[in-house]
Amino acid sequence: MLVSCVAYQGGKRLTDIPINQTHEYLARPDCFVWVALKDPEPSELKALEGEFGLHELAVEDAGKGQQRPKVDEYGASIFVVLHVLEMSGSDITQGEVGVFVGPQYIISVRRGVSQGFSDVRARSEQEPQLLRHGPAYVLYALMDNVVDRYFPIIDHLTDEIADVEERIFSGNTSRGSIEALYGLKGKLLVLRHAASQLLEATGKLQGGRVPPICSGLQDYFRDVYDHLLRLNQAVDNLQDMVTTAISVNLSLLTIQESEVTKRLAAYAALIAVPTLVAGVYGMNFAHMPEIQWVFGYPLAMSIMIGVDVYLFFRFRKAGWL
Amino acid sequence: MLVSCVAYQGGKRLTDIPINQTHEYLARPDCFVWVALKDPEPSELKALEGEFGLHELAVEDAGKGQQRPKVDEYGASIFVVLHVLEMSGSDITQGEVGVFVGPQYIISVRRGVSQGFSDVRARSEQEPQLLRHGPAYVLYALMDNVVDRYFPIIDHLTDEIADVEERIFSGNTSRGSIEALYGLKGKLLVLRHAASQLLEATGKLQGGRVPPICSGLQDYFRDVYDHLLRLNQAVDNLQDMVTTAISVNLSLLTIQESEVTKRLAAYAALIAVPTLVAGVYGMNFAHMPEIQWVFGYPLAMSIMIGVDVYLFFRFRKAGWL
Amino acid sequence: MLVSCVAYQGGKRLTDIPINQTHEYLARPDCFVWVALKDPEPSELKALEGEFGLHELAVEDAGKGQQRPKVDEYGASIFVVLHVLEMSGSDITQGEVGVFVGPQYIISVRRGVSQGFSDVRARSEQEPQLLRHGPAYVLYALMDNVVDRYFPIIDHLTDEIADVEERIFSGNTSRGSIEALYGLKGKLLVLRHAASQLLEATGKLQGGRVPPICSGLQDYFRDVYDHLLRLNQAVDNLQDMVTTAISVNLSLLTIQESEVTKRLAAYAALIAVPTLVAGVYGMNFAHMPEIQWVFGYPLAMSIMIGVDVYLFFRFRKAGWL
Amino acid sequence: MLVSCVAYQGGKRLTDIPINQTHEYLARPDCFVWVALKDPEPSELKALEGEFGLHELAVEDAGKGQQRPKVDEYGASIFVVLHVLEMSGSDITQGEVGVFVGPQYIISVRRGVSQGFSDVRARSEQEPQLLRHGPAYVLYALMDNVVDRYFPIIDHLTDEIADVEERIFSGNTSRGSIEALYGLKGKLLVLRHAASQLLEATGKLQGGRVPPICSGLQDYFRDVYDHLLRLNQAVDNLQDMVTTAISVNLSLLTIQESEVTKRLAAYAALIAVPTLVAGVYGMNFAHMPEIQWVFGYPLAMSIMIGVDVYLFFRFRKAGWL
Amino acid sequence: MLVSCVAYQGGKRLTDIPINQTHEYLARPDCFVWVALKDPEPSELKALEGEFGLHELAVEDAGKGQQRPKVDEYGASIFVVLHVLEMSGSDITQGEVGVFVGPQYIISVRRGVSQGFSDVRARSEQEPQLLRHGPAYVLYALMDNVVDRYFPIIDHLTDEIADVEERIFSGNTSRGSIEALYGLKGKLLVLRHAASQLLEATGKLQGGRVPPICSGLQDYFRDVYDHLLRLNQAVDNLQDMVTTAISVNLSLLTIQESEVTKRLAAYAALIAVPTLVAGVYGMNFAHMPEIQWVFGYPLAMSIMIGVDVYLFFRFRKAGWL
Repeated sequence: MLVSCVAYQGGKRLTDIPINQTHEYLARPDCFVWVALKDPEPSELKALEGEFGLHELAVEDAGKGQQRPKVDEYGASIFVVLHVLEMSGSDITQGEVGVFVGPQYIISVRRGVSQGFSDVRARSEQEPQLLRHGPAYVLYALMDNVVDRYFPIIDHLTDEIADVEERIFSGNTSRGSIEALYGLKGKLLVLRHAASQLLEATGKLQGGRVPPICSGLQDYFRDVYDHLLRLNQAVDNLQDMVTTAISVNLSLLTIQESEVTKRLAAYAALIAVPTLVAGVYGMNFAHMPEIQWVFGYPLAMSIMIGVDVYLFFRFRKAGWL
Repeated sequence: MLVSCVAYQGGKRLTDIPINQTHEYLARPDCFVWVALKDPEPSELKALEGEFGLHELAVEDAGKGQQRPKVDEYGASIFVVLHVLEMSGSDITQGEVGVFVGPQYIISVRRGVSQGFSDVRARSEQEPQLLRHGPAYVLYALMDNVVDRYFPIIDHLTDEIADVEERIFSGNTSRGSIEALYGLKGKLLVLRHAASQLLEATGKLQGGRVPPICSGLQDYFRDVYDHLLRLNQAVDNLQDMVTTAISVNLSLLTIQESEVTKRLAAYAALIAVPTLVAGVYGMNFAHMPEIQWVFGYPLAMSIMIGVDVYLFFRFRKAGWL
Repeated sequence: MLVSCVAYQGGKRLTDIPINQTHEYLARPDCFVWVALKDPEPSELKALEGEFGLHELAVEDAGKGQQRPKVDEYGASIFVVLHVLEMSGSDITQGEVGVFVGPQYIISVRRGVSQGFSDVRARSEQEPQLLRHGPAYVLYALMDNVVDRYFPIIDHLTDEIADVEERIFSGNTSRGSIEALYGLKGKLLVLRHAASQLLEATGKLQGGRVPPICSGLQDYFRDVYDHLLRLNQAVDNLQDMVTTAISVNLSLLTIQESEVTKRLAAYAALIAVPTLVAGVYGMNFAHMPEIQWVFGYPLAMSIMIGVDVYLFFRFRKAGWL
Repeated sequence: MLVSCVAYQGGKRLTDIPINQTHEYLARPDCFVWVALKDPEPSELKALEGEFGLHELAVEDAGKGQQRPKVDEYGASIFVVLHVLEMSGSDITQGEVGVFVGPQYIISVRRGVSQGFSDVRARSEQEPQLLRHGPAYVLYALMDNVVDRYFPIIDHLTDEIADVEERIFSGNTSRGSIEALYGLKGKLLVLRHAASQLLEATGKLQGGRVPPICSGLQDYFRDVYDHLLRLNQAVDNLQDMVTTAISVNLSLLTIQESEVTKRLAAYAALIAVPTLVAGVYGMNFAHMPEIQWVFGYPLAMSIMIGVDVYLFFRFRKAGWL
Repeated sequence: MLVSCVAYQGGKRLTDIPINQTHEYLARPDCFVWVALKDPEPSELKALEGEFGLHELAVEDAGKGQQRPKVDEYGASIFVVLHVLEMSGSDITQGEVGVFVGPQYIISVRRGVSQGFSDVRARSEQEPQLLRHGPAYVLYALMDNVVDRYFPIIDHLTDEIADVEERIFSGNTSRGSIEALYGLKGKLLVLRHAASQLLEATGKLQGGRVPPICSGLQDYFRDVYDHLLRLNQAVDNLQDMVTTAISVNLSLLTIQESEVTKRLAAYAALIAVPTLVAGVYGMNFAHMPEIQWVFGYPLAMSIMIGVDVYLFFRFRKAGWL
């Protein structure tokens, strides 16, 4: 589905144009076309392939989706794939944006991304002095936006892990908190996957042999690169903490089990000791003076209760109960 | 066993030819021969070695099998080894394809691979404009096909791990689920082995100093390379999840054991408390008023049952029973 | 907030100057300006951007904070970000210093750093022969100071781990010591984060293609680099020890639990054996000679006590009690 | 001890020669000498040092043994150290071969290797067209032979691990199987040590700047390199499986312990319930009708046995017994 | 403290000289001065700095100590830091040697090293043909000596780990053996720290761009490098074994605990069964024929004892007792 197709000249928005009349604007100097698509039909992509002379393999990638984050050069133009992550409830959903960048056009194709990029367009149009850099600047703006969307996810996962920490250190680990740790591990892998491969791809745009179309904007792409590095570091730290939490949790469970054992043993003692006393007075010896006492029975009961009260406080003091 | 031997010119299929008359076609310009063999006899390979001038060490490798995935250059021709993985039941079987690629020939030798490559041939023949690129394009088509076969295996293993996850988080881990995790680890190693080494080998065909025979097709080999990268990433993630599942499972087992201990303790209490009551009324004191009561016995029994009913609900409420 | 703004010539302090009159001193040869800011307002940074011709992206970074440690080149000048770590109680707080270094100016912007850098200024001014090297030397002095502040933290964490070690090897691991290990892991990650990225950034200043502004001072930056390497090594070691401590601790807990089990079993035996004896003499056989003995009862009690005393010493000798 | 000293010309064996008359043959073109030594005396090596002009440090290495696998260049000649692994029972013994390779000589010095290299010599002499390549080809043949000896060890260790797997998954892990896993880890480290360092050393002979003496034989050394890569991969996989087996085993042990606990609890119940019944009928109430019944006693016994039979089948059905 | 200061010419010892008259000898061709210091005062280093023109930062490093192993170039001279490890009891103490090497001098400064380097001097003076290489050869001899001192430590740690293995596989792991494993981990980290960094530093002297002062002696430094590689490999192996031992130990402890549980259960059964029998004969049924038998009591006791004897042998056979 075509979201929009707009021509720009000298950094300023000219007008919305029909998708099949772009060649007219491409003929003008200092002019470029910015096309946004969402879950396009194969026919739409086919039409663009002809209109802009896109490479067959890149179009195939954008059509199929399921690509890894990457920057592929095809002659003077490049094809970039970005993973867009969004929280839906406590799950991470992953969408994809394929971006074709040529000297006079930028085409973004998003799939499975609920929140579009209209804010990128709006902000870019407010800074014509930057937008004058052309399609490569738009690519930077898109990447910057995609990377900025990763940070709230990091924050969400950081909160989740803090939550689990609190639960396990408070001393009652349930299956739930272990499942949460396992789920966190999975989500961090998704985030790491997206961020580390994008980092590698962005590296190609900020240093070394930069594609000609992006040269002059290395400082901007380095900025994105720095954000991704920081993000990767944060993901690494969280992964380390999750791994540590899992192994620490096992120790806590062992302590917890040990405490249960002690509590059970204490209760067992509270039953076993009076049972022993009762056993003693159940013996059939002919000569057991207490047996004949009028207060023998209450005395025995008092002994039982007395011992239990004593034990109860001993156990409580020792932290067993 | 010879599967087929076909001559192509300008991307179009000419005719099936006997294996010993290939030199006639090799003399024509823009013509190449595509030979497919399956578990060949040493004599068959020997004949091909003479016919096409293959390198002795490459022929030896193709004859013995058991090679690692690789791309070896021998002068103007290359020898490629691919591992083909197939699910048979829940096991992975591993076959091998050795491919000799020269300027005018491509020879594939498969061993232990049940499903052949006739679909690669069929699809290639439908796209003469691509097949015109010659043997290197056929190599690409073969590699693409082999790599495409890895993805269903990944899907199968992903399902298997999801299955195990469900079992262990539902709270009754058996030996079976642990053995399944261990088995998964093994299968992932096989897959990783095949994919990572093929990745490395494919890297030589898509960038840097590409063998002359493959130059001009780098974009295609980069496509295979990208798929392999994605595959490797997926395998890495699954490996991480299996490792995490194994360690998380230990915590779950500890919780499970703790639950069993509590349930056993609850039942023990249900027996021990009435035993204590019985012990009390088994004492031989001369003066125990209840003993003489007509309803003493039913009363004692009621106490026992009453206490047990009370304890039972307490334990149930505490989640011990 | 402006902390200070001082002009230097030939390594000697000239005078404090208002921030908007620096151009006068920048015109003189062999003269540079050293500006220190603390949590500046956006307007203050904006003013400096114009005054010194700072790069927009660098100013933005310094304004937002939350950058990773890095060295970015912008033409002839560089922008450096350092993380400053300080212990507050047993927690590590992390501040940031952004440093703009140009041929004739050095501007440090600190955020969330409680202890300033006036001692760096004081020491530098006492060594005019070194300060004559200009802004790059001041950068070295700042980095050296920041790195020196990492070492007391290492010492603190080393003490903490030694403390936990003592606790867990003394045989009574509590939740507290496990939580301490987990906390240590987190603090080490913060320290490692700061040190490893600063190491990488410093590497750019001490070897390979050094930014022109720092050339001639490589030996000094190599010194900082060496300190950071040593620090990283120390952090790695501590991390290894924490990981080992966590896994060793689990074994110690298992031993501890085993000891509790044995102690409980010993106490259970001390109750169960006399209960058995009592049971025996509670049997109703018509012919039980002991029953009729006058000293039967004391004898039975003596047996019970005797057996318990015997068991008690056996258990004590076996280390169960 | 001198094993043999033979002169070759044009790939053909000339004759056995005394060790001190080699210079005569070294003067002939296309002629080389192949010397084999076993656990030589220092004096023997000293003599060779003079005869062939070997480098002092290389001779010292060959004399002391205990070197790591390596390829050292000394001017036009090279010194190679290989580790030879042999199974003796279920242990791996490690021997060493030092090989001096010069333009006209090859000297192999083996230490602690029970099986010699006479088969290498025999096979080489049957292929004079290959042996014509000179000492470097003999080096290849020796390396190929040494590497071939690693594979049976891999097979042996693979069998050992399969054996342990079977033991631990059958549900009765003993100390023995854990010790076996630990032992396997150790043996795999020895194998990995030998193979990975030899891989690195062989890498120098197959690509990049190859020592002149080996140039022209890169394809052969690449073949050895490929075998070593495959071997390393196999060792890595086995190491991963051993590590996984160790961690999985802990889960299995926890399950095993849980099963023991349940079985013990079941037996405890089979004793405790009749004890409770006996306790009830041991109460001294004046009015207990069953007590007076003639069949009271058999009835009570029947209840006890009946309850136990019922429990027994319940427990069996629940898999506790 | 000055240990010695000797002048050498053409590899031969000339004479001991006062430290302030070295310039006289430095003027002669083919002459160098070898100075050895131990825990020097700042003033002594200051004097040397002037006498030999040492670099301020290097002198500062040598004065402070606490450096990491490294090779720093300062113009034509180099400054090398080595860590010297010595066993004191079962602990590793770490000393440091800083070595200044210039074209005509070598100055070694040791701190916290109990055993000096007089044997290096003695051996070097016996080989004037090697000592003729000048200060770089002395550096080699010192490094070789320092590295040689690492090997007995490896042997010691290997023995320690073998000792712990024996203890844990014999089936009674104590806190002591776990603490020993933890201690081993720490010592291995110290050794690894020293060896791996020295390896890296030595790498600079044996290949690539070698400092001019060391060129011509690469073969010798490669020898040191090889020893360090072997050492590193050995440390890696030991670390792997320690890690494996820790995780294997946990399984052994679980088995051990399971055995304790079984033994306790067996003893519990030996008490509980006779208690049940006693309970049965404690029932008050009017018609219990055995009760009236003269031999009822002995019979009951025999049953109790008989059952226990039977159980005892069953348990023993099952390996529970």
